[in-house]
Amino acid sequence: MRQSQLFTKTRREAPADEVSKNAQLLIRAGFVYKEMAGVYAFLPLGLRVLENIKNIVREEMNAAGGQELIMTALQRKELWEKTDRWSDEKVDVWFKSTLSAGGDVGFAWSHEEPISDMMKGYLESYRDLPVYVYQFQTKLRNELRAKSGVLRGREFVMKDLYSYTTDAAQHKEIYEAMIQAYQNVYRRIGLGDITFLTFASGGAFTQFSHEFQTVSDVGEDIIYIDTEKRIAVNKEVYTDEVLAHIGLEKEKLIEAKSIEVGNIFDFGGSKSEQLGLMFKDETGALKPVYLGSYGLGITRVMATIAEVMSDDKGLVWPEGVSPFRYHLVSLAGADETLRARADQLYDTLTEAGISVLYDDREQRAGEKFADSDLIGIPFRIVVGKNSTDTSFEVVTRSSGETRTMSKDELLQHS
Amino acid sequence: MRQSQLFTKTRREAPADEVSKNAQLLIRAGFVYKEMAGVYAFLPLGLRVLENIKNIVREEMNAAGGQELIMTALQRKELWEKTDRWSDEKVDVWFKSTLSAGGDVGFAWSHEEPISDMMKGYLESYRDLPVYVYQFQTKLRNELRAKSGVLRGREFVMKDLYSYTTDAAQHKEIYEAMIQAYQNVYRRIGLGDITFLTFASGGAFTQFSHEFQTVSDVGEDIIYIDTEKRIAVNKEVYTDEVLAHIGLEKEKLIEAKSIEVGNIFDFGGSKSEQLGLMFKDETGALKPVYLGSYGLGITRVMATIAEVMSDDKGLVWPEGVSPFRYHLVSLAGADETLRARADQLYDTLTEAGISVLYDDREQRAGEKFADSDLIGIPFRIVVGKNSTDTSFEVVTRSSGETRTMSKDELLQHS
Repeated sequence: MRQSQLFTKTRREAPADEVSKNAQLLIRAGFVYKEMAGVYAFLPLGLRVLENIKNIVREEMNAAGGQELIMTALQRKELWEKTDRWSDEKVDVWFKSTLSAGGDVGFAWSHEEPISDMMKGYLESYRDLPVYVYQFQTKLRNELRAKSGVLRGREFVMKDLYSYTTDAAQHKEIYEAMIQAYQNVYRRIGLGDITFLTFASGGAFTQFSHEFQTVSDVGEDIIYIDTEKRIAVNKEVYTDEVLAHIGLEKEKLIEAKSIEVGNIFDFGGSKSEQLGLMFKDETGALKPVYLGSYGLGITRVMATIAEVMSDDKGLVWPEGVSPFRYHLVSLAGADETLRARADQLYDTLTEAGISVLYDDREQRAGEKFADSDLIGIPFRIVVGKNSTDTSFEVVTRSSGETRTMSKDELLQHS
Repeated sequence: MRQSQLFTKTRREAPADEVSKNAQLLIRAGFVYKEMAGVYAFLPLGLRVLENIKNIVREEMNAAGGQELIMTALQRKELWEKTDRWSDEKVDVWFKSTLSAGGDVGFAWSHEEPISDMMKGYLESYRDLPVYVYQFQTKLRNELRAKSGVLRGREFVMKDLYSYTTDAAQHKEIYEAMIQAYQNVYRRIGLGDITFLTFASGGAFTQFSHEFQTVSDVGEDIIYIDTEKRIAVNKEVYTDEVLAHIGLEKEKLIEAKSIEVGNIFDFGGSKSEQLGLMFKDETGALKPVYLGSYGLGITRVMATIAEVMSDDKGLVWPEGVSPFRYHLVSLAGADETLRARADQLYDTLTEAGISVLYDDREQRAGEKFADSDLIGIPFRIVVGKNSTDTSFEVVTRSSGETRTMSKDELLQHS
């Protein structure tokens, strides 16, 4: 894309009321726009990052047997009353309204209930199980405070997968597969090294749930990490008894603040019983379907990357999620030869299917480099007086390292 | 995809309260699920159709210079008060709620206001114009009645593009380009022949707006079509004066009921003035930005196809939007050779990147064919006693025509 055509521009300052680093950077670089506290629109650069993250998550969910669908924002009161999660005393983040035609309606903050209720029409026998379904859904949550920028919003995009199985044994298979899928996701989006499978408090059915926690000073959780085993324990279950049970040694653990970037829950058969989601087993007996729930915040992951991978110059996108692979910065000015060289390189790369943001604007070099650092694309190609038809200066955003590369090398994605 | 893995199943009956043909068929075939009146979830088959439609629309919007973004569902009261569209007397489809932190909040039924308000941060000078931005957004509308199935819902997906230009002359260019882009979309999704550019009532700034109307008996509009010129006039502006102005002859026009599948509006500078979206022209004078708005209902288009392209056996998807290209129906039963033949064909086609729904279930042939007709994939490949390793029976869903095709021909997408 030609930057002269991109309607967003970088800005020196974020809105005065924006206190979180992730949102400040994302707003200044033109990735998001703040509609109100905790509510952000995603502009062209930001939407590209979101879609890259979604595609990685989609590939991993599909590989684990997930089937994608999309549920609704509007929710029936009667349904959520069945599981006692309609009243504001039980769930304090509901947005509610009334239908013109009469009656209350809720706006989905979660989807276990509607998706499980729907499954009553499709799951009858053990032969229909297991089933794994997932969606990328905009969740609406009426949070009292919203000061963490894109990390914790009132409106955000989440991937939620639900597993329907016959029993704990069948459940265990997908649960383990999901842990692996999540670890693949964090590795591919660039957060693998600092994200840990974390034991957290369970519910009525299991001793623990599992979270994925990314180490960050702005995190709201505290975890204790075994860096060798690459697992952690959330402070909420950090007792000698739990450590012994998991097989961790207290003296080897490191305390850290962290951001919860995913969580996986084991509901057992309880919610299915409340909703009447039953199946016939091999003997013809009716049993509640065993439910698991697996969340991964897409917008939160994007904000986490902005928060932890940035430096004092701006954002630093990992290759897997960056809006573009190359930032081609032309310093041609009035030099027609240089301009033609930059144009030609842009055409060659884009025709090869490689994503390029081409800074073809007339700004000064200093401004262009500052913008480029702020936007944070992994590799910057500079076309200026020192470049020739065959060799280009390439700067790696994360390290600042400068190399000279040929057109062929650029085409080889290295 | 193997049909044995697909969690949805076809059903003989739609819900008793579902009166519209489009929703009845889409529910029975497993494309959508009815959460409540006018509110539908999109199941794996349905989501694939939606994404195919979106991708076609996206390609045409990008080709016309559109930049994709995504705005928010939650909306600020103050903003909509500026244009006098907050009160329920002025706009009767608002869903509204209150923030935990205090204050009213609305749920977006449209996005002209927030997207134009946002643009104040990016448009300053005539040099920044024109700009075209668009999104695929879930709109929420508190409709009193919802009896048209997926055609007119309380929750639906729309593509809305907004054009920001300096004046009527610059506006005219994108307006004409959008008419062409819309016509490309309707042709590519299979509705081209029965969809007409239609003159409808304008606003304060222009004599006419333009709609795209698809001929259908369930349509809520009445139009008068000149089939030669391929344009129509909405009944609301059907006068001798208007016909003379457009250059149509009354006696050549055919009356028809129709579904509005797209509309394009010219707002002039009025909304920008209300919101304070101004730019500096070449002389340095401040002027309101000229706004155009271009809607295309993604879910409505899908429902329209279901409504007008179906027959008494079920859905009939056009090639451009079908969830899969081929429905591979295996009649192998216990015959291992036939099963291996079907498996191998499935592998060959999917490895070549061709989308296939593979009915590998153990149902009887009659059931499988009935399901296949209901689901409506364009080409059915039958692997049974009459097929060999090199030749397969292929049935075209729309015509019922049967041919014999080789593997190579199947791979050539013909």
